Amino acid sequence: MFVHRREVTIEWGDCDPAGIVFYPRYFAMFDASTAALFAAALGYNKFEMLSRFGIVGFPMVDTGAKFLHPSKFGDVITIESQVSALRRSSFDVAHRVFRGETLAIEAHETRVWAGRDPDDQARMKGVAIPDEVREVFRV
Amino acid sequence: MFVHRREVTIEWGDCDPAGIVFYPRYFAMFDASTAALFAAALGYNKFEMLSRFGIVGFPMVDTGAKFLHPSKFGDVITIESQVSALRRSSFDVAHRVFRGETLAIEAHETRVWAGRDPDDQARMKGVAIPDEVREVFRV
Amino acid sequence: MFVHRREVTIEWGDCDPAGIVFYPRYFAMFDASTAALFAAALGYNKFEMLSRFGIVGFPMVDTGAKFLHPSKFGDVITIESQVSALRRSSFDVAHRVFRGETLAIEAHETRVWAGRDPDDQARMKGVAIPDEVREVFRV
Amino acid sequence: MFVHRREVTIEWGDCDPAGIVFYPRYFAMFDASTAALFAAALGYNKFEMLSRFGIVGFPMVDTGAKFLHPSKFGDVITIESQVSALRRSSFDVAHRVFRGETLAIEAHETRVWAGRDPDDQARMKGVAIPDEVREVFRV
Repeated sequence: MFVHRREVTIEWGDCDPAGIVFYPRYFAMFDASTAALFAAALGYNKFEMLSRFGIVGFPMVDTGAKFLHPSKFGDVITIESQVSALRRSSFDVAHRVFRGETLAIEAHETRVWAGRDPDDQARMKGVAIPDEVREVFRV
Repeated sequence: MFVHRREVTIEWGDCDPAGIVFYPRYFAMFDASTAALFAAALGYNKFEMLSRFGIVGFPMVDTGAKFLHPSKFGDVITIESQVSALRRSSFDVAHRVFRGETLAIEAHETRVWAGRDPDDQARMKGVAIPDEVREVFRV
Repeated sequence: MFVHRREVTIEWGDCDPAGIVFYPRYFAMFDASTAALFAAALGYNKFEMLSRFGIVGFPMVDTGAKFLHPSKFGDVITIESQVSALRRSSFDVAHRVFRGETLAIEAHETRVWAGRDPDDQARMKGVAIPDEVREVFRV
Repeated sequence: MFVHRREVTIEWGDCDPAGIVFYPRYFAMFDASTAALFAAALGYNKFEMLSRFGIVGFPMVDTGAKFLHPSKFGDVITIESQVSALRRSSFDVAHRVFRGETLAIEAHETRVWAGRDPDDQARMKGVAIPDEVREVFRV
């Protein structure tokens, strides 16, 4: 299974008055990690991916996280991400955050591979995930 | 059960290149809704609440959301929030987002009522939720 | 001169470990205030404005702010905004933030009224500000 | 003069519906660059710096930026930062953003070296910048 790891430095601006990460910031980090996971697996970035496959994005339909240990500015965390399921037009990603050896967060997400709805350009619609993507994430 | 509702206008800066809300922004809105729920129930804001009860905050330990319908900049959503469970030192909040009559998002959160750890001022520790808070959210 | 005022509640998540607003959040508030200023003057929101005038947005080209007094979560500030200059395809906005009677921030911005570049759809290009907009902001 | 450079990947979530960086995100990047500049010069991070010098932070008092070229998600920018002036209890930082060889943004900031006000713990007050800091940024 293709696993992607990246280090993220927690910044002052990621933290709240309690001095720890304001949790919505973690979801922004996870979104960037999912993009980095696909870029690492496919060999090109999200901008090129959208253009190549003619999609609008892979919007979130379901996500959740368990926060086991807080982090503060100056800490360096490792986010480990992998595609845990692939369906016709949707997929799951699992993220685990480590601070040193400690598991700090477990998160999961379900996203849709989305194009413009041909009947209404203002709407998005799930489309089939291309074989090229299936190949690299073969579970 | 005490229910709090507030309207939020989706801003340009809340949205991503697909033109819809970048989902981490919803979690920031939910965090503000939980603060507003407590302020409405108690009659004073989070700043005064922390000082009155000698706590550091109510950090998130578990949260999740299902995104049923996307919203775009200019849309006005209603966030409906309530405390759905109260334990000794933790509690749950349920949020529902409506756009008009349409249920757009369902979210839940579990938070800890947290003070400074007396053995280590750099750490937080769950403390008993005060009776005054239990009274207003009596389930 | 058309002046728009709106109240903003400072949220926990707007603040940093020093307990005061993380200043990039003010720029997000100013961006929303500029959108609200146009919506109030024109009678329709930014989404409709872009569609009606066939523009992509009004991206920032120059901005600055002086922070005279900090605000903390729970504070309610008033942002007062007005178009201070209108040129062929760019305009200036001035924002003043008050906390009670106290002037807390002064900010200015210069934006371009931008459409897609006909020679390169991936680029933006300044286009003439429509008369309807000139009328409502007649300086 | 001590100059710090770091690369930043523009993320999907940094961008707005026009597909380019939502400019308040640049200010968050600059805030992190100033922290990285100090960490690189001093040899320890902002968390340790605040504790070592007994300060609350270095809040912004004046900032501005000129946006010369937009960036989009997937772009990698280089932020080049240096302390351009040091006074008794305040200092200036200059940031320049490059995309490849192109100068994309010029920004400046003035910050205060701030401790708790001994007469009012809820307030901050400028304090003298320590000699150790003056040494590393000797202009």
